[in-house]
Amino acid sequence: MSTYTAINLIARPEPGPISPDLFEVVQQEIPSAGPGQILVKQTHMSLDPAMIGWMSPDPESYIPPVALGEVMRSSGVGEVIESNHPDFAVGDMVRGMIGWTQYLVSSGEGLNKVQPGVDAETVLSVFALPGLTATQGLYGFGNPKEGETIVVSGAAGSVGSIVGQLAKADGLNVIGVAGDDEKCDWIVNELGFDGAINYKTDAIADKLAELAPQGVDIYFENTGGPIQNHVFELMNAHGRIVVCGMIADYTAAAPSPGPNWIPIIKKRLTIQGFAMPDHFGDVPELLGKLTPYVMSGKIKYRTHILEGLESAIDGLNLFFTGGNKGKLIVKL
Amino acid sequence: MSTYTAINLIARPEPGPISPDLFEVVQQEIPSAGPGQILVKQTHMSLDPAMIGWMSPDPESYIPPVALGEVMRSSGVGEVIESNHPDFAVGDMVRGMIGWTQYLVSSGEGLNKVQPGVDAETVLSVFALPGLTATQGLYGFGNPKEGETIVVSGAAGSVGSIVGQLAKADGLNVIGVAGDDEKCDWIVNELGFDGAINYKTDAIADKLAELAPQGVDIYFENTGGPIQNHVFELMNAHGRIVVCGMIADYTAAAPSPGPNWIPIIKKRLTIQGFAMPDHFGDVPELLGKLTPYVMSGKIKYRTHILEGLESAIDGLNLFFTGGNKGKLIVKL
Repeated sequence: MSTYTAINLIARPEPGPISPDLFEVVQQEIPSAGPGQILVKQTHMSLDPAMIGWMSPDPESYIPPVALGEVMRSSGVGEVIESNHPDFAVGDMVRGMIGWTQYLVSSGEGLNKVQPGVDAETVLSVFALPGLTATQGLYGFGNPKEGETIVVSGAAGSVGSIVGQLAKADGLNVIGVAGDDEKCDWIVNELGFDGAINYKTDAIADKLAELAPQGVDIYFENTGGPIQNHVFELMNAHGRIVVCGMIADYTAAAPSPGPNWIPIIKKRLTIQGFAMPDHFGDVPELLGKLTPYVMSGKIKYRTHILEGLESAIDGLNLFFTGGNKGKLIVKL
Repeated sequence: MSTYTAINLIARPEPGPISPDLFEVVQQEIPSAGPGQILVKQTHMSLDPAMIGWMSPDPESYIPPVALGEVMRSSGVGEVIESNHPDFAVGDMVRGMIGWTQYLVSSGEGLNKVQPGVDAETVLSVFALPGLTATQGLYGFGNPKEGETIVVSGAAGSVGSIVGQLAKADGLNVIGVAGDDEKCDWIVNELGFDGAINYKTDAIADKLAELAPQGVDIYFENTGGPIQNHVFELMNAHGRIVVCGMIADYTAAAPSPGPNWIPIIKKRLTIQGFAMPDHFGDVPELLGKLTPYVMSGKIKYRTHILEGLESAIDGLNLFFTGGNKGKLIVKL
């Protein structure tokens, strides 16, 4: 009898770092695919900032939290190793919400075949949540126009790095905000951003004024934190603020206040929050928009690979420390 | 030689009440209409909260400030008493940005004839800035749907009272926020709001929870101040916040912080600021939308009349104290 490893969520996070006590690592017997089912062996698992939200019970969130005692939720890529399903063959690579587990028995619902020739890292780094989120946020709400200025926080992150490259390809002045010099160097010299701000060491207001002499038309907010008020002050009339992530505040005991609303009137700003589950029906259109940029080499990415399922637990803390360099992927 | 009175702005407001020292009352010779011109004698002048903004230099505001030494800006209704213009006859009533003056010589540009049978108070209370602003904000951005709940701050004010009545006519649950019991009584018992909150004396959170058991779908923000955070917390998923006025913060030395942005993501909120000058091209459509509500008796209003041009100066302070009961109009 062979066993496999899965990790269940067993407690809710408190403010501060993610504790290993929130999880239970379990060994289970590898099941077989029943009638109409497939058995998937996961090869790559994505870690995303949104997971922090999925762990917390919040009746107003866009998606129900992971129930205590259940396998932690995540998206991943795996190989079909048994199939009693007409649409899937052994050897097919599939993607979907597989969870923190080495094996999954599934009816196939919610799983999609990976296009041959596209590797798992590209799937999870670009054609999954990061790329879809970047595309929906920038084009669905940001309304970018050539010659405008965009500021992207979390710019070296999986979403922010794609937002900035899409905007650059469209002819905008692109300013990225990140938390260390290596990331700032990467987004400017590798990804082609026009400028970068290290929010930990730069004089933010001065640097922002220097990089955005015409003001800011679009603010793509992935982090919250000290950068927010500075960018808000520089917004131009009819500016658009797309609120995609607030990682700096997700587990803070007391979330920091936002800016006063007077500029919202004076500058007739639009502030739009969004979450991808509302837009899953638009995935084909989003992929249609994103794919040409990827195929023409406009979208670069890098991955930060963790080895082994259990590395996911402490891996989540990299979102708080900013310690990851690239899209976080757990290789199983 | 006859003279008339005008009032010039000669200094910029400081935080706190509006001082009479900001203005200079001048006597001037009554001019005659030149070729192609008309001479207008103003009969009614509107005081609006937006005027506080017009007095302050702010390069990012939606409209240039009134220049120092110039007549203070305002909208009003007047009678044509001389005309060398083919489109205007002596005796016509006209409306437009006449300013703080008893007489105005004009080319007619920006002045529109008042429809016969509509009195000056109705023009300034409903068919001018207040009604246009309410209509643009509610229908252009609020997207009201029958059965939804709307909270209107400044609900007894000129804009808020119309927003609430329009929403009520459309079948929404309408909650108004005002600053004294008489106003709360008026909006519920005269205007038909479903509930009212006296933000100065009620336990705001409790009262709001009681009046909005299903949460809040639309927040029409006219004031800022302590109500803002309470309503923000109760917003439903996909809620719309229309930011129309922030009178509580306009002259504060340090504007109060806004709410943290995490709920903007969790609830996928839309926050939209607006100012009417962006929408003056849509006035015909806005009047087309508003007029049927007025004609069918759905929109009631009341006026707070001040007597004489010079009463405008201290009259502005009523916006800060909330001392006015109804649309502020200066009768000349």
